[in-house]
Amino acid sequence: MFEAAELGQKVSEKKYQAALPKMRSALLEAHFALKVAKIPVIIIISGADGAGKGEAVHRLNEWLDPRGVDTHAFWQSSDEERERPPYWRFWRALPARGRIGILFGSWYTEPIIRRVYGESKTSELDNALERIAFFEKMLAEDGAVIIKFWFHLPKKAQKQRLKAMEKNPKTHWRVLPSDWKHFKMFDKFVKISERALRRTDSGPAPWHVIEATDRRYRELTAGQIILKTLRDRLKKQPVATQTGDAASLPVKKGITILDHVDLSQRLTDHEYDKQLAKYQGELTRLTWAANKKKVSTVALFEGWDAAGKGSAIRRVTSAVDPRLYQIIPVAAPTDEERAHHYFWRFWRHLPRAGRVTIFDRTWYGRVLVERVEGFARVDEWQRAYLEINDFEEQLADARIAVAKFWIHISKEEQLRRFKERENTPFKRYKITDEDWRNRKQWDAYKRAINDMVAHTSTEYAPWTVVAGNDKKFARIQILRTLCAALEKQL
Amino acid sequence: MFEAAELGQKVSEKKYQAALPKMRSALLEAHFALKVAKIPVIIIISGADGAGKGEAVHRLNEWLDPRGVDTHAFWQSSDEERERPPYWRFWRALPARGRIGILFGSWYTEPIIRRVYGESKTSELDNALERIAFFEKMLAEDGAVIIKFWFHLPKKAQKQRLKAMEKNPKTHWRVLPSDWKHFKMFDKFVKISERALRRTDSGPAPWHVIEATDRRYRELTAGQIILKTLRDRLKKQPVATQTGDAASLPVKKGITILDHVDLSQRLTDHEYDKQLAKYQGELTRLTWAANKKKVSTVALFEGWDAAGKGSAIRRVTSAVDPRLYQIIPVAAPTDEERAHHYFWRFWRHLPRAGRVTIFDRTWYGRVLVERVEGFARVDEWQRAYLEINDFEEQLADARIAVAKFWIHISKEEQLRRFKERENTPFKRYKITDEDWRNRKQWDAYKRAINDMVAHTSTEYAPWTVVAGNDKKFARIQILRTLCAALEKQL
Repeated sequence: MFEAAELGQKVSEKKYQAALPKMRSALLEAHFALKVAKIPVIIIISGADGAGKGEAVHRLNEWLDPRGVDTHAFWQSSDEERERPPYWRFWRALPARGRIGILFGSWYTEPIIRRVYGESKTSELDNALERIAFFEKMLAEDGAVIIKFWFHLPKKAQKQRLKAMEKNPKTHWRVLPSDWKHFKMFDKFVKISERALRRTDSGPAPWHVIEATDRRYRELTAGQIILKTLRDRLKKQPVATQTGDAASLPVKKGITILDHVDLSQRLTDHEYDKQLAKYQGELTRLTWAANKKKVSTVALFEGWDAAGKGSAIRRVTSAVDPRLYQIIPVAAPTDEERAHHYFWRFWRHLPRAGRVTIFDRTWYGRVLVERVEGFARVDEWQRAYLEINDFEEQLADARIAVAKFWIHISKEEQLRRFKERENTPFKRYKITDEDWRNRKQWDAYKRAINDMVAHTSTEYAPWTVVAGNDKKFARIQILRTLCAALEKQL
Repeated sequence: MFEAAELGQKVSEKKYQAALPKMRSALLEAHFALKVAKIPVIIIISGADGAGKGEAVHRLNEWLDPRGVDTHAFWQSSDEERERPPYWRFWRALPARGRIGILFGSWYTEPIIRRVYGESKTSELDNALERIAFFEKMLAEDGAVIIKFWFHLPKKAQKQRLKAMEKNPKTHWRVLPSDWKHFKMFDKFVKISERALRRTDSGPAPWHVIEATDRRYRELTAGQIILKTLRDRLKKQPVATQTGDAASLPVKKGITILDHVDLSQRLTDHEYDKQLAKYQGELTRLTWAANKKKVSTVALFEGWDAAGKGSAIRRVTSAVDPRLYQIIPVAAPTDEERAHHYFWRFWRHLPRAGRVTIFDRTWYGRVLVERVEGFARVDEWQRAYLEINDFEEQLADARIAVAKFWIHISKEEQLRRFKERENTPFKRYKITDEDWRNRKQWDAYKRAINDMVAHTSTEYAPWTVVAGNDKKFARIQILRTLCAALEKQL
C-alpha cells in the first residue's frame, strides 16, 4: 500500500506558489459552504514519526478559517479519560456539525502501537480495526465527512531526517532516544500500519497515503484532497429517506415479549419491607465495593408513562452514597448535543471509574419515541440497533456493570395511575397532555418495544422487563437485578 | 452562631406526616415556576460529619422533580480538576438556568478543612472566604438563588452517634478512624466553621444553621426554608436596569490610552525575519519547558476588526507543538453557555496543566461589543470589570501565564485593510457587513477600550496594547510579550 508513496514526488517552489492562492480561496469557500450546510468534517493526520504531521496541522489551520476548526491531539490521556471506555476521549473531541476537527493522532494510534510493541495479538488488532470501521461508518451515516491521511516517509528518508536533526544544534534536542528505537522497528511498523489501513479503507472513510518526503508536495496534495472531498460532498447531499414507523419484526398479533410478562406478580407489605431492607443494604455494600475496585455502573430506566421509573430510581439512589451516583434525565437535547451524533450526549455522561450513572430515559429513545413519532428517519432508527449494541459492548468491555430496565404495566393500570396523579396535588405536575397522546399510540409503542428488546437484549447487556403493575414487586425486581449485575463485575 | 442550633428541637412523626404533603406539593409548584422563570438555584449542604447531609440530599431529590435537579458531590477530584484553578470544578457543576443544583460539599469545604488541620493561616482562610463571598455575589447578581445549609450536630450528639454506629453490626463498618479523629477536633472545627459562616453570611446568599439532632426537624426545616426562599424570589423578579453605553471614565476629548500608542513603529523585512526566528524558537522552547513544569498559558487576543488577530495567532501557534495548544474562537454562545453565568463558557476552556489556550476574542466582549451594542445591561458590564479581575487573579494564583493583547490600528489603516480584503479572493470571507457597522461606532469602542484597559490592567494580568499598523512589528511585539510572560512563571 505504501509503494505508491515512495516515488520521490516533489513540487517546486514555483509550482507550489502558483497553485496556492487558488487552492486557499477554494478551500475557504468550501469551508464556508459546509458551515452553512452543517456538515461535520473529521480530518485524521497520521503516519510515521517525522513525516510532517505537526507541520500539516499548522498548515491546515492556516489555510482554513481557524474559527471553524478544532484541533485535537490525542496525547497524554487524563484520568477522567482513562477511567472511561477508550472511545470516550474521541467522542469528546468530535467536531460539531459545520465544524472541521483536525485530529492529530486518532483511534488508530493505540491499536497500531500496541501491536508493534507486541502488547496485543493480531486478532486483537483486527477486533480494534473492526470497531474503528464501525465507528467511522456510523459517523459517516450521520453525515460526517471523514478524510484520513497517512503521511509516509520511506525508511531511507526517515534515517536521513533523524541524522540531519541530530547534526543541527538547533534541533538536535528534539531527537529522542525513542525516535531511534522506533526507527529500528520501522519495517514492523510499516507492515502493521498497512494492515490497519487496508482493513479500514472504506467508501465513506477512505485512506489517502501521501508521500511525505517533500514538504510542498505533501501539503499541496493534502490540501487538494481535502478540497476535492469537500466539494464532492457539497455537491451531493445525501438524500433523506422517509421518516415513519415501519418494518417491525414479524410478531403474531398480540404476542409480543410484553405479553409474556406476568403482571399479576405482587409483594405483600411485609415481604416488601423485608426485601427492600435486604437489597438496599446489598446495594450500599456493592456500590462501595465497586468504587474501591473502580468498577462503574450504568443503569438504564425505560418504561411506559407512569410505570414508576422515578420512584424506582429513588429506591435505588437512597441506597447509594450521593458521592457515588449521578442521575441523567434525558429530555430534549441542547443545541450542542443536537450538533453532534445522536450518541454524543450519552457518551458525555458516562461515569468515572467506580461511580454509578442512572439514565432516566436513554438512547433507546431513538427506537421508541423517535421511531413512533417519526422524529428519526427509518434508516436512522433501524441502524440504531447495531449502534446501541456496539455502544453497550464497549461499556461491557470496560467492565462496566450494565442494567437495563423496561418497566411494563398494563394499559388499564396506566389509566388508573393517570387518574390518580390528576387527583394528587403533588403528583399533578407529572401528568401532561403528552402522556395522554402517547397513550393513544400504545400499540405502536408495543411493537417498537418488542423490536427493541429482540434486537438489543445481548449477553453483555440483557434487558430486564419488569412486572410493574405492583410497584413494590417492580422495585424489588430492579434492586435485585442491579445487585446481580454489580456482583457479576466484582 | 451555633448556639441557636443546640436547643433540642424536635418534630413528632405525626406533625411531620401532617406537614409533608402540603410542603411537597408547594415545593414542586415552586420548582416548576422557577423552571419557567429560568432561575438557577444552588443549594449547598454542609455541616459536621454525621449530621445527616447525605440523607438531606436524598430527601431533596425525593421532594423535588428529579429531572430538574443536578446533585454534585465534591469529593475526590480528578487530575483534570487539579490541573486547573480550584474553582474550575465548581464552575463545572453550577446548575443551568431553571435547574436546581444540590451541592454536597462545596467551595467552603477545603478552606475550612485546611485551616482545621493547620495547613493554612487565618489570613489565608479569610482570603478564601472573601473570594467565596465575591463568587456568590456574582452568581446572585446573575439571577441565581443561593441557599446555604449548615447542619449542626452538638458535640454530645456527635459522640452518641458514633458510639451507636459502632455498636450496630450493620453500621459499624461505616465508622472510620478519621471520624474519631475529626471528633477530637470538634471544638476547633466549630470555631473555624463559625468564622467561615459569619464572613460569608450575606444578603444574597445567607446561611441557614439547622439543628441536626432530630431527622424530622432538620429535613422539614430545610424544606420549608427552600420553599420560602423560592417563593420570595419568584414574587420579586429583579428589575432589569437599562442597557446602553454610559459612564465612561472621564477622559479628555481625544486623549485615551490608544492615542498614546506609537503606530508609526515598523520593522524591516530583514529585522522581522531575524526576530521572528528568534522569538518563535524561544516560544517553542518555553512552551515545552512550561509543559514539563506544568505551567499553563492563557493568551487573549482582542483588537479592532482587521487588526490582524488571526495572522498574529498563527505566528504564535506555528511555534507551539499542536499537542500543546488549543484555540478557542469566541462567537455567539451556545444555549448551554447562555444558560449559565457569562463566565461559564470561558472557565470550561481553561487549559490543563502545561498547556496553552488561545482565546480569539474573550470575556472582554462583555465590556466591549456587549456594552457598545447594548447586549448587556449597564449594571452587567459595569460589574464585569471586577469579575474579570477576580477571574484573572485566579488564573495568576494558579501560576498560569496570562498575556492579554489589544491590537491597535488607526482608523485609516482599518479602511485600507477592509478594501484590500474585499479585493483578495481568499480574504473576502473575512469582511462582513458587521465589520462596516462596527466601524461606524469607532469612537464608542474607543471609549470602551480605554475604560477596559484602565479597569483591568492589573499587576498579575497587564494589558499589552500592540502597535498594529505594521503587522510585522505587531507580531514580534506579541511573541516577545508572550515569551516574557512565560519566562516569568518558569
